[in-house]
Formats: sequence, C-alpha cells, structure tokens
Amino acid sequence: MEFFEVIEKRYSHKERFSSDPVPLKDLEMIAKAGLAAPTGNNSQCVRLIILPDKEAIKPLYDASPSEILLSAPSAIALLTGSPARTEKYNFEIEDYSAAAAQMLLAATALGYVSLWLDSPYFEEDKQKAALSALGAPNPSPSYKAEEVRERDSLSSGYSLRVVLPVGYPEGAAKRRSKLSFEQRVSYNLFKST
Amino acid sequence: MEFFEVIEKRYSHKERFSSDPVPLKDLEMIAKAGLAAPTGNNSQCVRLIILPDKEAIKPLYDASPSEILLSAPSAIALLTGSPARTEKYNFEIEDYSAAAAQMLLAATALGYVSLWLDSPYFEEDKQKAALSALGAPNPSPSYKAEEVRERDSLSSGYSLRVVLPVGYPEGAAKRRSKLSFEQRVSYNLFKST
Repeated sequence: MEFFEVIEKRYSHKERFSSDPVPLKDLEMIAKAGLAAPTGNNSQCVRLIILPDKEAIKPLYDASPSEILLSAPSAIALLTGSPARTEKYNFEIEDYSAAAAQMLLAATALGYVSLWLDSPYFEEDKQKAALSALGAPNPSPSYKAEEVRERDSLSSGYSLRVVLPVGYPEGAAKRRSKLSFEQRVSYNLFKST
Repeated sequence: MEFFEVIEKRYSHKERFSSDPVPLKDLEMIAKAGLAAPTGNNSQCVRLIILPDKEAIKPLYDASPSEILLSAPSAIALLTGSPARTEKYNFEIEDYSAAAAQMLLAATALGYVSLWLDSPYFEEDKQKAALSALGAPNPSPSYKAEEVRERDSLSSGYSLRVVLPVGYPEGAAKRRSKLSFEQRVSYNLFKST
C-alpha cells in the first residue's frame, strides 16, 4: 500500500475483531517494521513476542483481562529491557513508541486493524502477572507500581509496554475526531490556538 | 512510495544536508503524517512549527547550536503542551514519539532524509532559549532542568521535544548496524537472547 494511504487509513480499533486468522508471515512483517524504528543511541531495547493465535493470547488475557484482546485472533507484545538502561539518558518510552507506531502502520498496510493497548498493564500486579504469563523476567524486587511507566525505573528485568492485537474488524471503523491542521501547525513561529 | 519500502529506507541522517530547498507542500505533508499518529486518550497534544528555510531555522540554531541543523534547508519543530496534562496518565512522550516516527517515515517516503534531533534541547537553559527563539510560551518558573524529559513536569507552557531537519543528504547514507530479527523476536513466549 502507498505510504500516505496507510497514514490516512490507520485508526485505533477499540471494537471486536472477526475470528479470521492472521498468517504468521504477516505478523512477522509487522514485527520487522517495528524493529526498523529508530532508537535512542541505537539501543534497540525493544523485544517482541508474536502471539500467533488465540491459544497464545489466552495466558496474557487471563493475567489482565481486556475485552479487545479476547476477540483478537493474534497479537504482538512489545517489551523493553535493560539494554537502554546503561546510557546517561533512557529513551525506552521513545523507543517503544516509535516501534509501536510503525507496527500499527504496518498492520494497516497489510489490511488489518490494531490498537495501542497499554492500560491493562499499568498496575503493578497486572504488569507482573502479564510478564509471568509471557515467560519474561520479572522486574527486580525494588520495583514500584507507578514506575512501570517511568524512566530509569527498573534496573533489571523487562517492562511490558504495549500489546498490539492484530486482525480484521468485526464491524465498521469508529474513528475519533481530530483537531484541524491549522489548529496544530504554524509557520516560522509558535502560534497559540 | 510503497509502505514497506519506506520502512526499509528510513535511517537517521547525522551528516550534512545539501543546500537544495524543500517545497513547503512537502513539509506540510510530513506535518500531516505526524498529526495523524495515535495519541493517548486522543489528547492530540503535539504542536508543530514548520521552519521552511534556513532563515526560519537560524534563531533556533543560535539558541542551541547543532551542526546538523546548520546545514539543513528546512526543519519541523515538535512541541507538546498542556492538553495532555489534565489526564490521569500523561502520554506526552508516547504521543510525540509516535508523531516523530511517522514524520521521519513521511520524509523518507517523499525522498528526503531526516533525524530525530533532541539532545540540543535537554538542558534547561537550552530548552528555554529554544522555546523563546520559536516564540513559544516558556515553562512555568517551577520548571526544573531534568524535568523537560519527564512526565507531569510542566503544568503550563510547552516542551520542545524534537526537531526534525528535512532535506537531501550531501553524501551517502551511514546506517548503523542492527541486531537480527531472531535476536529481538520470539514466538508465544519470551526468549532471552
């Protein structure tokens, strides 16, 4: 699909998915698009877990239920880890966000819909349960609940940042309204809107 | 350009730009691609300032010199502001990062090169000088140096998050090496690499 068509088509799918499966090679293309994103100091701190079917998603759903994940035929879990934590500045949030954005676009380019699903993993107990369900190393004992979303928080272990369910929509797209170009862009100097 | 070709072509251009100008309509297409990125709770907290020529870039360069910016024929400055700060969770970093990632891809799709340029604006004095140069409201007096990169830091004013120089490269692309797909992706469960 042409790049700017993808940009226009992408939206956050918060409704149900149809049960049609997603071929593994498509999930791998989406994953590759995420890994190609820029990372601060080239840390490449993003790790992905492809969950190719409902069976693979089930433990993650059980750890922190989310309706949207229940209907998804496949998903990709995105974790960030220690590689980024040795630098003076920690760009884990930038890094995972750029990777997630590129994967959402890639899913769109292949005809699927997806969603930046993070809220089920904010709370400490849910985060730990989700990491366990994925077989990922848990944060260190000094881990604090609110820190999962902060920088420089975890000296060891991984953080589950976002899960992207991938599939076809069951119904029509529900797009949110957006501010206009003129409300958000100015020329030469800042313009308050 | 086809979406996955864009994904493969994008790289962080840290060398000089040629002096060839960039048409304003291309900068606007890049800006639009940024505004189309997802934002937490649809906050749309990203604001863009198009710097269409060297004259427009000059005050920003003077506020915090950066070699790469000196040679760039045009740039887009990305700020985040207060709209995102009323929510329980603040997604400014995710929001700006997704927008920046989409703009870097859009620049690539149009045949340009770009860079996620943020380090010149981390320090408090540089951040304030850069905001002033852009005519943007400065942070509140309680602003602390290290907080420019943190969440929930600025109750008012804007943060200059990143500047994307846009143009043609003067020389060949210098790409950084990347870990392999197998080193970063696993199936069903986390796999340590």
